[in-house]
Amino acid sequence: MANNQPTSQPPPGERPGVRAQTAPGRWDGVAVMPYKQSADAPFRDVTRQVLFADSNLACEWRYFEVDEGGYSTLERHEHVHAVMIHRGKGQCLVGSAISDVAAGDLVFIPPMTWHQFRANRDDYLGFLCVVNAARDRPQMPQPDDLAALRRDPEVARFIRIGAEPA
Amino acid sequence: MANNQPTSQPPPGERPGVRAQTAPGRWDGVAVMPYKQSADAPFRDVTRQVLFADSNLACEWRYFEVDEGGYSTLERHEHVHAVMIHRGKGQCLVGSAISDVAAGDLVFIPPMTWHQFRANRDDYLGFLCVVNAARDRPQMPQPDDLAALRRDPEVARFIRIGAEPA
Repeated sequence: MANNQPTSQPPPGERPGVRAQTAPGRWDGVAVMPYKQSADAPFRDVTRQVLFADSNLACEWRYFEVDEGGYSTLERHEHVHAVMIHRGKGQCLVGSAISDVAAGDLVFIPPMTWHQFRANRDDYLGFLCVVNAARDRPQMPQPDDLAALRRDPEVARFIRIGAEPA
Repeated sequence: MANNQPTSQPPPGERPGVRAQTAPGRWDGVAVMPYKQSADAPFRDVTRQVLFADSNLACEWRYFEVDEGGYSTLERHEHVHAVMIHRGKGQCLVGSAISDVAAGDLVFIPPMTWHQFRANRDDYLGFLCVVNAARDRPQMPQPDDLAALRRDPEVARFIRIGAEPA
């Protein structure tokens, strides 16, 4: 198969044909990256991989893997997330609903809905996430938002904002 | 979790939160549908499920399952396909390259590239496919296209156009 991409930084998703899964949650030609660059978006033990981000595709298809005990950033935004759990298990918050999730389950996150994924079931949690290529920046909860979220005791116990002891 | 969708025909993907995988390749609230409506697009033993098709998402995320011995339509189009094999194994044609594929593998189909999936490895072949919500109609091969494809003996042996004995 032709592969004319430069070897230094291949644009993800633009290689025609097959890229094999080389190990669970790892793929030929897909770099494992830090979850976020920003220090003010609290998370723990998460990696990010871009599986498809072709200029002809209106969406990006990413894979996030949360190590046991870790969590994604508690955030909201105007764009939506379409998620499928790929490996392992854990829980997620969508709005005020906390749900168990395991490999194969689907999760839809509507606009401006607080959400967080936690690998809190003695396992990693790996999930696929499809998102519009053109999208707004995530918002972090402000003190008023946290106060509102914490009015539900179950949500108060669930959310992680980086101030917890390790 | 609230579910205010009518039970007759729930808009796929618009239910917030989790939809569980109820069996391999089957999901709560996701209907199993015929692959294509058109009689002039040859295929064999394929089902289609729309996992996410929300109006806020620029793409649709579908799941196709090909029974053992079946195949998807040989086609091409301007829009691209981002594919991950979800279950089972088989082979795919992308352009003139025929590749083995199995659960977890990624496949990218560039614009105007002939492609076909076959469950020809004594197994079903189930694959996730993300595609732009706004897209052109697939083109079927015309006699000249088939003649060009068949110049490669391996491709000639691989492709299925519905004229084969059952």
